[in-house]
Amino acid sequence: MATVLKASPIVKQYAADLKQECAKLKANGITPFLKVILVGQHPPSVTYTKNKKKFMEGIGAKCEILKLDEQVSEKVFIETIASVANDKEVHGLFVQLPLPKALAHIDVGQLVPSEKDVDGFHANNLFKVLSGDCGEKALVSCTPKGIITMLKHHKIDVTGKSVAIIGRSLIVGKPLSMLLTNLNATVTLCHSRTTQLKEITKGADIVIAAIGKAKFINKDYLSDDKKTIVIDVGINYDASGKLCGDVDYDDVENHCSHITPVPGGVGRMTILSLAQNLIKAASSLAKDS
Amino acid sequence: MATVLKASPIVKQYAADLKQECAKLKANGITPFLKVILVGQHPPSVTYTKNKKKFMEGIGAKCEILKLDEQVSEKVFIETIASVANDKEVHGLFVQLPLPKALAHIDVGQLVPSEKDVDGFHANNLFKVLSGDCGEKALVSCTPKGIITMLKHHKIDVTGKSVAIIGRSLIVGKPLSMLLTNLNATVTLCHSRTTQLKEITKGADIVIAAIGKAKFINKDYLSDDKKTIVIDVGINYDASGKLCGDVDYDDVENHCSHITPVPGGVGRMTILSLAQNLIKAASSLAKDS
Repeated sequence: MATVLKASPIVKQYAADLKQECAKLKANGITPFLKVILVGQHPPSVTYTKNKKKFMEGIGAKCEILKLDEQVSEKVFIETIASVANDKEVHGLFVQLPLPKALAHIDVGQLVPSEKDVDGFHANNLFKVLSGDCGEKALVSCTPKGIITMLKHHKIDVTGKSVAIIGRSLIVGKPLSMLLTNLNATVTLCHSRTTQLKEITKGADIVIAAIGKAKFINKDYLSDDKKTIVIDVGINYDASGKLCGDVDYDDVENHCSHITPVPGGVGRMTILSLAQNLIKAASSLAKDS
Repeated sequence: MATVLKASPIVKQYAADLKQECAKLKANGITPFLKVILVGQHPPSVTYTKNKKKFMEGIGAKCEILKLDEQVSEKVFIETIASVANDKEVHGLFVQLPLPKALAHIDVGQLVPSEKDVDGFHANNLFKVLSGDCGEKALVSCTPKGIITMLKHHKIDVTGKSVAIIGRSLIVGKPLSMLLTNLNATVTLCHSRTTQLKEITKGADIVIAAIGKAKFINKDYLSDDKKTIVIDVGINYDASGKLCGDVDYDDVENHCSHITPVPGGVGRMTILSLAQNLIKAASSLAKDS
């Protein structure tokens, strides 16, 4: 049986640290404040933003969800981001994705100032990931950061390990490939045009699925030695409407050494990263002011 | 026998295009102007900057080398960059690397405004490489850009091909891995901590060596089918003082399908990229003014 890499005990531990840091900031008159811009009422987005708000409040931070109408004009949308960005009370800000079609062309990551970009989408923050300069002020993309936190927590040293990432998005695959390369892993970044995907994943020590296809990775993609570490970034629904990942968990769990569950795995780590970025942003902004 | 991917005919063709574009800009009162900051008298750097100046002048652009003393203070060095950056006559600017030890900690790429950053080192330009948004205004790192130009010129489609890059620098390996990923190649980014390097390169359709070790890659690193495309980014000197690459050319040339020579390969493509970036920067700045 594989070791199940559950987020819950990790999140509990780190949340306690964040609560302390938050209390310290509050003692100095700074209440970490996250503002979320939510356009429309896309049900999963409503749920995600609620979960994020609950988590931030749980560590003692302030969180407000600013709701905009689905039909909001581009002008008003951009002005709203600018106005929140300029609010000195706000330390972190992000726009919940996906956006309605009419706004989907806007690269919101570049509209949020890099020092408040708790999603880690801004050029300056991605540059830090690329260059390996992820020091005190870097706000690292939440999902990749959460995966690294999880691996480190379980003392999984990636040095010299081969990692196959499936999915080349700017939010997960690309920044994660850079973070893992900086940590001395050898990363193969796979995608929809990759040929011989199974050969690559079978040869990998760690397989990270960020494809967006329900139960895509089954045991045929894994080495026969049952030593693969499987990280599942996907959030999908299967044919029966049940939440599932990009990995066919039931098929894979007896054919790997470690596996992250869905739900309760990478998704929860992502919210933890967001909170870590908020506290980091609030601390940095407090120091600079 | 492998096809030798010589830069010279490609450079000749593209230089003619650049000459025309330069003439057009000059007809509109804009003389593309590159300024190079050279600290000290490191002999290879003196040669490189001279070669770059000669090439820029060959296409009709203006190029000046601003020489600073090796002992220049950090303050004066940074002020010099700022002053050149603010000069409205200057369209492109870069600092010849390596810098003397006392200045080596400075990330000069971030001191040059992104719109004049013809080296492609600025966060905004690397972000464009990462996101795949390498449109009209993007200034792409010169060596990776030169390699892509060479592959495209030879109609080598990288879609679905497996590429092993050896070397994870911010100047070559990392941006090149992103450019090739954006072009649908499946890239494995290898480095000094990679285990089973030979296994990876033997399985690759394209091997790109950017390690900085003379003649490191020999035929043992290549597939037996002699179909590998070998790109050599290295500029080293062998035991007898002769210029050579990271690839043992004599050992490899009969065991691959294509190979770039050193000298006369990637190095010359890099200077072409610099000139392309200069003309692009001058055109963009002219449009914006």
